[in-house]
Formats: sequence, structure tokens, C-alpha cells
Amino acid sequence: MNGGPIVTDVERAIRDVVIANRILAHEGVVDAYGHVSVRHPRDPTRYLLSRSLAPGLVEGGDVIEFDLEGKAVDGDPRPPYLERFIHGAIYEARPEVQAVVHAHAEAVLPFTISTTALRPVVHMASFIGARLPVWDIRDNFGDTNLLVVNMAQGRDLARGLGGERVVLMRGHGFTAAARSLPEAIRIGVYMPVNARVLAEALRLGEVKALSRGEIEAHASMRPDDPAMWRAWEYWAMRAGCGDLLTART
Amino acid sequence: MNGGPIVTDVERAIRDVVIANRILAHEGVVDAYGHVSVRHPRDPTRYLLSRSLAPGLVEGGDVIEFDLEGKAVDGDPRPPYLERFIHGAIYEARPEVQAVVHAHAEAVLPFTISTTALRPVVHMASFIGARLPVWDIRDNFGDTNLLVVNMAQGRDLARGLGGERVVLMRGHGFTAAARSLPEAIRIGVYMPVNARVLAEALRLGEVKALSRGEIEAHASMRPDDPAMWRAWEYWAMRAGCGDLLTART
Amino acid sequence: MNGGPIVTDVERAIRDVVIANRILAHEGVVDAYGHVSVRHPRDPTRYLLSRSLAPGLVEGGDVIEFDLEGKAVDGDPRPPYLERFIHGAIYEARPEVQAVVHAHAEAVLPFTISTTALRPVVHMASFIGARLPVWDIRDNFGDTNLLVVNMAQGRDLARGLGGERVVLMRGHGFTAAARSLPEAIRIGVYMPVNARVLAEALRLGEVKALSRGEIEAHASMRPDDPAMWRAWEYWAMRAGCGDLLTART
Amino acid sequence: MNGGPIVTDVERAIRDVVIANRILAHEGVVDAYGHVSVRHPRDPTRYLLSRSLAPGLVEGGDVIEFDLEGKAVDGDPRPPYLERFIHGAIYEARPEVQAVVHAHAEAVLPFTISTTALRPVVHMASFIGARLPVWDIRDNFGDTNLLVVNMAQGRDLARGLGGERVVLMRGHGFTAAARSLPEAIRIGVYMPVNARVLAEALRLGEVKALSRGEIEAHASMRPDDPAMWRAWEYWAMRAGCGDLLTART
Repeated sequence: MNGGPIVTDVERAIRDVVIANRILAHEGVVDAYGHVSVRHPRDPTRYLLSRSLAPGLVEGGDVIEFDLEGKAVDGDPRPPYLERFIHGAIYEARPEVQAVVHAHAEAVLPFTISTTALRPVVHMASFIGARLPVWDIRDNFGDTNLLVVNMAQGRDLARGLGGERVVLMRGHGFTAAARSLPEAIRIGVYMPVNARVLAEALRLGEVKALSRGEIEAHASMRPDDPAMWRAWEYWAMRAGCGDLLTART
Repeated sequence: MNGGPIVTDVERAIRDVVIANRILAHEGVVDAYGHVSVRHPRDPTRYLLSRSLAPGLVEGGDVIEFDLEGKAVDGDPRPPYLERFIHGAIYEARPEVQAVVHAHAEAVLPFTISTTALRPVVHMASFIGARLPVWDIRDNFGDTNLLVVNMAQGRDLARGLGGERVVLMRGHGFTAAARSLPEAIRIGVYMPVNARVLAEALRLGEVKALSRGEIEAHASMRPDDPAMWRAWEYWAMRAGCGDLLTART
Repeated sequence: MNGGPIVTDVERAIRDVVIANRILAHEGVVDAYGHVSVRHPRDPTRYLLSRSLAPGLVEGGDVIEFDLEGKAVDGDPRPPYLERFIHGAIYEARPEVQAVVHAHAEAVLPFTISTTALRPVVHMASFIGARLPVWDIRDNFGDTNLLVVNMAQGRDLARGLGGERVVLMRGHGFTAAARSLPEAIRIGVYMPVNARVLAEALRLGEVKALSRGEIEAHASMRPDDPAMWRAWEYWAMRAGCGDLLTART
Repeated sequence: MNGGPIVTDVERAIRDVVIANRILAHEGVVDAYGHVSVRHPRDPTRYLLSRSLAPGLVEGGDVIEFDLEGKAVDGDPRPPYLERFIHGAIYEARPEVQAVVHAHAEAVLPFTISTTALRPVVHMASFIGARLPVWDIRDNFGDTNLLVVNMAQGRDLARGLGGERVVLMRGHGFTAAARSLPEAIRIGVYMPVNARVLAEALRLGEVKALSRGEIEAHASMRPDDPAMWRAWEYWAMRAGCGDLLTART
């Protein structure tokens, strides 16, 4: 929220990618691995993503522009994330998606290897949507190292996601598709919370989940809602990058 | 405990609201959401609550005076919490209540969606009272986003609370009504502890809960008891706002 | 480990009480409540314990000399812990005991309200001894606030402890009796670890506990063993009071 | 990644041992106990290991050169770890092993005292290998304090490990044998994560583990892979010793 020099929409998008990386690291959603991207604000066939680097260390200069096939647009020679195809394939399949998070958050992992379905049970997690498909790379690609390392695998994952907000990846983690970076971060932060609450509630007995109407009512919050911004701002401050926040328009 | 300039009762109440917010954030009872208020020390038809802001960022200038209907008394134009009606409705229904906390503390959430009753099992949690009703907004308002956003909903919640200390809110969190801010904070901090201990004990087998006599014996501690103050002071120091503590009278 | 002015045994004991308090707070064994004492190095009918204060805030000037009945020897007027009788009663009953810790560590609490017995299953916890009695204040004192607030209750607790290292207190916490402060701290730190490991292992199926011979072999480590000192030194550094460490003799 | 004076391979190995110690402490894999070594880069009959010290406090000057029997090569008089024989015995039995970690990480302990087998279920943990034997010192040595305090016990442990990556030690912890320090650290960090995920998934129902082909595909990552380095670098930065990182060759 500084009043410094004018910032272009691209510069702001890059700053927001940095903030998003730092928040995910600070809140424990990602560790040395995991990544977050935003669709390019001027060219929907490109997205902005860090070079291969732990999210907690990402700075503006690390953010690279990729085309949807995962090629660095300006030929940046620095090693990219092996799994950047997750991002391009989802932007390709879902024009309305503006931000993608991929993470291995521990609390979500048990649900990726279980037949017990993950579903939203607390209102902060309504954004994950009513249905969370589980995608298993083994179904179509046999024994791999589980990483999504080419467009064929990325597109298969995007098909697994379908029209939903989040897809679980067996033995690996999850990927979320959101309408904005603050929404993507919100999903990232509350996915593990919701998973822990559901797992614990299942041990207590029968669970009263959110109804479809409740999920839709809450998840329809606009991505620029003040309550959404409040969390984005707070998590950025906690992550030590409050100085990167730009004034809301 | 500074010996600086004389502080009025209203200024002290505002400082205490700041301390309470910071403690709840630092102890993990609230995150970007949740809020805490105190009844106005001079006018029981008003209460003091922060503007819409993450509790960990609240400062004195953020605290606004509201009437019981949730209207800012001096017309402060800054966005208020959408759920401020929780506070007003409880102050309206319960004249002896001096402080209200609303939080989504993770460990409590499983009990809000389960038929297993939460009850105090450790003496530090005797303040939550012998009975914790669960209020479900769906009962009287159908499918909503679960937020308490008007006086009708606030009053329904207050009826759910009845004469108890704490009401659980299905899929949402809990609200506590206390005789002072230190007591409200104490309830807020020990609610998750007690919930985790009970959940774990249930897995070990049969549980020996506190008797009603034990709950009453402990919960009758005066709100200005030194042992109550000891925790308030410690948590304030941990939260980095020990400088806001005022000398005990 | 400084080479400053000569420190008497009493001064060293007071420093060690401060270190012990800070370690217990930093490692999460105590919060605003809980306390730790050492028997007076020159007079076995006295012990050193802080005034009523959160352990994380204790400094040398807060440590008071008490007789075994819990009376401040020099008439110090500052409020003492309400539960100081725990300490005196155990020093009275057990001449070989040199240090006492009382704590409410969360992970231990489920075992205080359950019929499932807590027992050492990892070698670091062998110091808690083969048998951990559970004392219930209700047995002899009926409905109370569960606090041990006079010598009759303290002595009843000491009888519950008997010749063991640790006694669990129903719905309250535990008290450990050790041969030195480093040993008392070690028990305090590993009690919750052992409790969590046992609870988790019980969920996995049958548990292979430590044999009595293994418990005795490990617990016979001398209280001044270098491996004991290593932990004391490390935890003191972590707690930010490494400067209070005195050279080993 | 500094460009300072030229560093020999031995100096780099010592720095790396320091980094490894600090990472393990900062990520909570070890506490006051546990240790990590590297085989001497010039002499395969020696290894580098700290003197007896909490891993979080280790500095370059604390690292000592031992022969495989656990004798300090230059007669360093400072007390060594009692359990250094774990390291020598594994280097002796497994010529390809370059680094060894021994830890008591809490989340792993339940599996050391249970008949439920620990196995990799998330791809980050594929490095632990398909099979994790459990070694019980009681089988061949009867009632002990569970510590591995001589070469006979160390060699028995090495036989228990066999050709695997990790051996669990009943009621004690685990030991991992890796091809490099970054790989050893990776195993150390993800062992507890994998253990918690498996334990939680078992409570949800049937578990879909990694296939042998998946384990082999992922675990075949070269020890100098950029993705391996990314984690090493990140964890070193988090542990506050990023200044010790040397440029990759």
C-alpha cells in the first residue's frame, strides 16, 4: 500500500506472484517444493511463474513469462520447474482461471491415497468446491516418479480437474484453479485446515458437511471482496512482504 | 504496567481490545478472521470493536464504537466486520456480559460438525461451562454462507447461546461471552486445548470429565483474580504488546 | 559457561531455576501456568521457587526461598503460586528428590482422564519410570477447583506419587520428582513426546513398550552425565538464556 | 554460494556437515540428540562427525575425523557421541554410502514399536525405499539402555539395515544411509512427513501406497539433481546458515 512510483499491471502481477509464493511458504502450504502462477494480465496465452526455486526464496527477478506449452517466452536460460506443465495445461483448458497453485501440503496427502472423500466442512473452505476429484497419474502413464513433466500429463491432469476448483493428485498433493491469486492462496491455506478438521470429525462420528447451497453461497464471494483482501493483506504481512502490497483500486 | 500519563477508562478499554486481538492472533485462536469486543465502560448500550481487519494487525485507532444494532456511533466510514451483529445481539441479551470473542479455532471445528458433545475435561477449561450448545444457522435461515450478517441472525445465535458461556456454530466456529476481556481470552485460548485433549482421550477409551461441582468451583474465579491476570500479562508479552499493559488497580 | 565473578551455590541454584523455567516455557511444557523448583543447596528443609509469575517471564529476582510448609522464609510479600504445596510436600516425603516440576502439558492430559495407562515406550522417556500412578483429588477432597492449595492436599498428592518419578493428576496435569533440575527438565520435555508416541502407536495396533530392564538401564544415567548436560545446555540456548549457564565442575 | 577464498574438498565436507546438522535441528528432525556424518572425501576409511553436541549448535570446529572403529584420528580429547559406532559400522558394510543420519524424530517412533509397517506413500518419501526393516537391540543384546555404544552393536544394526536406505530402531528412532548429505537430509526431513501421512491415511481406511516401480523411478534421482539442491539450499537458508553454502560445481 505504498505510494511510490506508478506500477504497471505486469509489474503488479509479478509482485503478486512473489507475495503468493511467500505466503504459501510462510503458512506451511509449500516447503522446498510447490509453485504458484498467475495468468499474464495482457496475454491470456502466457503465465507468470518463478524459475525453479523454493517458494520462500522467490523474488521479482525470479519470475519468468511462459507460453502455455511451458516454454520461457524470452528464452530465459535458468532451469524452470519440472512440473510447470500443470499450469499451462489448466490455463489452456479453463479460460476463466487466473491463478494456479500446486502444493504437497501434508494434511491433504492422506486424502490423496484414501477412498475417503475430501469435502468442505467449514465455511472458510467452501472455495474448494463441492466435489474434489482424485487424479492418479498411474491410470494413464503407468509407473512414473509421479511428477507431471510434459504437456500430455498436464492435459490429463486438467481433464481430471474438469470444471472443479481443486484436483487431488494421488501420493503427490493437489492443484487448485482460482479466479485470482488471493483466491488461490485462500484455497491453499484452507485446504489443509479443512482436511484436518474433516479427518478429526470423522473420528468423532458422523459428520455434518456443508450443503451444496452453502458452498455456492460462500464461494460466490467476489475475488476482490474486502474479506478476501483482508486475508491476503494479513498473510502478506506475516510473511514479511507487506511492503510489496499495492493499494487496492 | 507503565507509569505514563493518566489513562481514562475508555482509553484503557481500547488498549485492552488491542491486547486481546493480538493475543488471540499470536496464540493461533484467530487467523485473518475472528474478532473480539468489549462493552463500553460508560455506556452499556455500546461496544468497542475493531474495523474490518485481521486481529493481528489491530491498533488503537482501528477500534470503533458501535451501538447494539451494529451501527458505528460516530459514523466512522471504514468497513466494519460483516459479523459484528454477533456482539451486539449478545450484549443485548446478556447484561452481565462484558466481552465477546468470535473465532474459527481449528481444534474446535470438528465438534461443531459432530454429534459428539464438547465438554470441559481439564481444569483450565472449566470456564467454558458445563454445557456447550451447538447452533446451526441452517435451522432458521436455510442455505446461507454461514456468516451472521444481520440482527435477526445475531439474535438467533444469542438465543442458541442462552445463559451459557460458549456457543458452537456448525461448520463455522464458536462465540464466547465472558465477564471481562481476560476471561474471554482465557476461554479463547483454552477452548482448542480442551477440544484436542477430549478428542485424544476419546480415542484412548472412556473419559473422566470434570464434574459439575468442579466446573463451578473453578469457573467461579473472579475475573480480576491474580491467576487470571498472570495469563493475560504473559500472553500480552508473548504477543509483543506488553507495553500496552496498564497497572492493575 | 562464562568466566565472570565467582558464583555461590545458592546463586547458581537460583540461576538454574530461571533456566529451568525458561526452558519449560520455550519447549511448550508450561504456558502461563506450571512451575519448577529446586531444593535449597544448603538447607534441605527449604526450596527455591518463583513468585506467582508465568514461567517464561521468571528472572533471578523472582525466585523466593520457601520452607516445606510453603511459607516464604524472609516474609517476601509478593503473591506466591497457589499450588506451591505440591513442592514442599514432595521434598518432605522424598529426601533424595532435588527438583520438582508441575505442568499441564497438553499431550499428557488425555492420559490423566483415561483408563489407558501411560508408560515409557521410547528410550528418552525411560526417566519417567515404569509406573505412572494417576492421582485424583476428588477421591479424598470431593468437588474442588482441582488445584492443590494446602499441605493436606500436597501430602495426599505425595502419597499418590509414592516412590515413583511422575504422578499424573486427573484433569489437571502431572508432577515430576527428580534428582536434579536437568533431570526434571528432561522428564518435562519428554513426557509429552512419549505420550504422543504412545497414543499414536496405540492407534496403529499392538505396542512394544520398554522392558523394565531397559527402563532401569537408561534411567540409571547419572544426573551429571554429559548427555544430560548436552540437552540442558541446548534447551537453555534455544530459550535465549545461554548466558546464564555456568561452567560444569 | 559465496565467491570467497578457495575451499578444499575437506573444508567443503566439514561445512556441509555443519549445514546438515543445522537443517536437521531447524526442521525438527533432531533435538538435543541425533547426529549426521559424511564419509571423508579423500579417505573412505574415515568419516566426519561432530563432537558430542546438540546438532543445532554444531560449528566447523566441532567436526572430528573418526576411523571406522569410532576412534578420533588425531586423538581429539573432546567427548564424542556415545553412538558414533552407528556411522562407522554402516560405512564399513556399505561402500557406496556417503552420508548417515541418526534421529529420534517423533512421528517415526510409533512405527518403531508397532507391527504396522512403515512404507512410502508420498513421492517425496520414495527415497526411503520400498522396505524399512525394524531392528530391535533386545534381540541380540538383551536389556540395554537401547543405545548403540560399541562396534558389535553397530555391526548388528548394519546387518539389520542390510541393503536398504533406512532402518527403524525399536523404541529409539531410525538411521538412514544415503549417497550424499543432501539426500540424507531429504530422507531425514520426509521420514516424519511420510509417517504422519501414512498414520492418518490408515485411520481414513484402505491406503494406496507407492508401487515399487514408482519408488524406483523417483528414488533414482541423481544426488546432485537440481531439485535435490533446491531443497538443500532452502533448508540451509531457513536454518540461518545460507552463508555456508558453496557454489555448485
